[in-house]
Amino acid sequence: MLINPDRFRQSMEEMARVGATKGGGVNRLTLSDADKQARDLFAGWADGAGLELRIDEMGNMFARRAGRENDAPPAMAGSHLDSVPNGGRFDGSLGVLAALEAVRTLNDKNISTRRPVEIVNWTNEEGPRFPPSMMGSGVFAGAIPLESAYEAKDAEGARFIDELERIGYRGDAPCTPRPVGSYLELHIEQGPALVSEGVQVGVVEGIFGLTWLRVTMKGERDHAGPTPMHMRRDALVGAARTIAAIREIPGKLHPEFVATVGEFSLSPNAINVIPDDVTFSVDFRHSDPDLLREARKLIEEATHREAEKENLEIEIQDVGGSTPTAFDANAARAVRSACEESGYSHRSMWSAAGHDARYAADLGPTAMIFVPCVAGKSHSEEEDMDWEDAYRGCDVLARGLLKMADS
Amino acid sequence: MLINPDRFRQSMEEMARVGATKGGGVNRLTLSDADKQARDLFAGWADGAGLELRIDEMGNMFARRAGRENDAPPAMAGSHLDSVPNGGRFDGSLGVLAALEAVRTLNDKNISTRRPVEIVNWTNEEGPRFPPSMMGSGVFAGAIPLESAYEAKDAEGARFIDELERIGYRGDAPCTPRPVGSYLELHIEQGPALVSEGVQVGVVEGIFGLTWLRVTMKGERDHAGPTPMHMRRDALVGAARTIAAIREIPGKLHPEFVATVGEFSLSPNAINVIPDDVTFSVDFRHSDPDLLREARKLIEEATHREAEKENLEIEIQDVGGSTPTAFDANAARAVRSACEESGYSHRSMWSAAGHDARYAADLGPTAMIFVPCVAGKSHSEEEDMDWEDAYRGCDVLARGLLKMADS
Repeated sequence: MLINPDRFRQSMEEMARVGATKGGGVNRLTLSDADKQARDLFAGWADGAGLELRIDEMGNMFARRAGRENDAPPAMAGSHLDSVPNGGRFDGSLGVLAALEAVRTLNDKNISTRRPVEIVNWTNEEGPRFPPSMMGSGVFAGAIPLESAYEAKDAEGARFIDELERIGYRGDAPCTPRPVGSYLELHIEQGPALVSEGVQVGVVEGIFGLTWLRVTMKGERDHAGPTPMHMRRDALVGAARTIAAIREIPGKLHPEFVATVGEFSLSPNAINVIPDDVTFSVDFRHSDPDLLREARKLIEEATHREAEKENLEIEIQDVGGSTPTAFDANAARAVRSACEESGYSHRSMWSAAGHDARYAADLGPTAMIFVPCVAGKSHSEEEDMDWEDAYRGCDVLARGLLKMADS
Repeated sequence: MLINPDRFRQSMEEMARVGATKGGGVNRLTLSDADKQARDLFAGWADGAGLELRIDEMGNMFARRAGRENDAPPAMAGSHLDSVPNGGRFDGSLGVLAALEAVRTLNDKNISTRRPVEIVNWTNEEGPRFPPSMMGSGVFAGAIPLESAYEAKDAEGARFIDELERIGYRGDAPCTPRPVGSYLELHIEQGPALVSEGVQVGVVEGIFGLTWLRVTMKGERDHAGPTPMHMRRDALVGAARTIAAIREIPGKLHPEFVATVGEFSLSPNAINVIPDDVTFSVDFRHSDPDLLREARKLIEEATHREAEKENLEIEIQDVGGSTPTAFDANAARAVRSACEESGYSHRSMWSAAGHDARYAADLGPTAMIFVPCVAGKSHSEEEDMDWEDAYRGCDVLARGLLKMADS
């Protein structure tokens, strides 16, 4: 391997102690004390590697190693050090610390690069404390206004900007778009494809587009006893049939198409009352914008059809979404040839989850590297991975970064 | 008419001012201050009619008019003065005050009866403050232990017995089964059958049996993006298909069979997470115990079938129920002939909702009289009825009571 696996693992394990939970995960909510400790630890390591650290207005951290053409847009690599509540040790940290290991490796071997190299730790990738997710990279790419990010509030009413200042990470550098020579991000897959197929590395060529809908169905509240079945307008029955119909839609479109109903609420929610008001979410994702449009049409048709059967009123609202993001072919090629140099099995794939790479892709050639995680689990303390997979991912990142830094 | 409609209406309107809501309903939760006021008003009227008032340990109120054979089991009529939160003006009050009007009519006309006549106001018919419902009649019939009724607590932790004493209605009379000569209860239908068929009076020959189940389905929590459809164990999809299947079961059994899913909850209830834990209730009712058994089998089969498709674990719990109660043929006949004497259109029916008459039927010949309510609505401020329907119901009750008191 190009990299030093033991050193990499040591850093990963030290980082995993910051905000460690009893269940083996980490609790490093954005701008919490644990987030500050993780940042301080990373800053110390960057300093130890001779890197110049720059912190921008969003708290995004860029640790820079000079290049031979130091004004050229940098070859970037990174991810995030924040976590969801009781999240895993590898989600995010893996990408930041693999980039650190890659730079340490360049230092060890006295390798100079044409472009400068920057390791980035994006602020608030996860988003559960301060929605939306991918906030730091979103502001950096010009997709989220700095002002609205600053005003985001957590459940206790604390403002993002106040918490950013409290932990001492409101930097001076402007958080505005600048040219990026390349961006590579190593991440656990957070899904079961690689682990179930026994493939060592995923060459990620894009990020799925996503649509979030909120469907409301309204019927009539009635006593569950004396109201004959044929006179009912049962909002829950209409919603249940719609959800059953939505489950069949992905199979009509593409093997990788996914659709999920995750939120559900009803009123009055009493054992002997026919529900008159149901609201549920629909989340659907794919790489092909035409199929996303087709799915939306099929979901709307199913909702109307089932509402009509039960004589319900409906409302369908858009509550979020993003278009599919195809990554740069050259960046993906660099990752693929890094796999081949080392003899790692690999496959092309798209990410169905959002990542900072989605925003980075707006500024320069971008690709991601996925490595298998146990049972495809993430966002919980159950998240785990094989260290050999982590080393391979780090090795591919280092090789890919070197290629992009010299391109 | 045998009765005095104006006097009856005046009492109904005065009672409706006790705990009146802005929306035209009443708020007389069991053992609240409004319940006490309603009881005091009724006690004053009973006194004015020369009746002897007896209050039992449960607060059930019996206002007695002597009979020629005063030791014979009494001909009873009544219902309840408590209400659900923001309930209607007719639900319960109609049956108590129609019985009062019937007795006032006997007084007016100096009619003596063989049996004594007792007007009853049952404590806590509704049950939302202190579950279960029909508590006063349930203890009276020996179906609910007095001790467990006394220990029932409301949402604020107040005990039934303490609230009963606070409002001054913990009586001395034992609340234990005693022979009942007959029991008649006038009530709004709380369903749309009479109003939609244009029938004036329902001769109620029994109360549906009821089964309450709680179904839990457990799958696997996963990220809504990277988890392919074929690898999911989505508890909400399993539940939705089961609920859609349950909706089809009544039609296979009987036109009057009803089944309802009213309660529903899921976890984690997040827009981008596949739900791993869903719980829902099933309420199903009919007059035929064989069909109730058949329905249970079909519901269990549907649950197992849909759980298997999504590879879910399931649990089905019994959380309540009652067997069908067929009323006495003679009591129903008395109601029917009362309708015919006055030329009111009528039909036989069963009640799909529970009533105190269910417990009274254990102690003596019982029947109910239903009258139409607007759109079949109850348990809300929308509840309403045509006064002419109320007068007809009161008239039938008075005639039926007279027949039973002389039987």
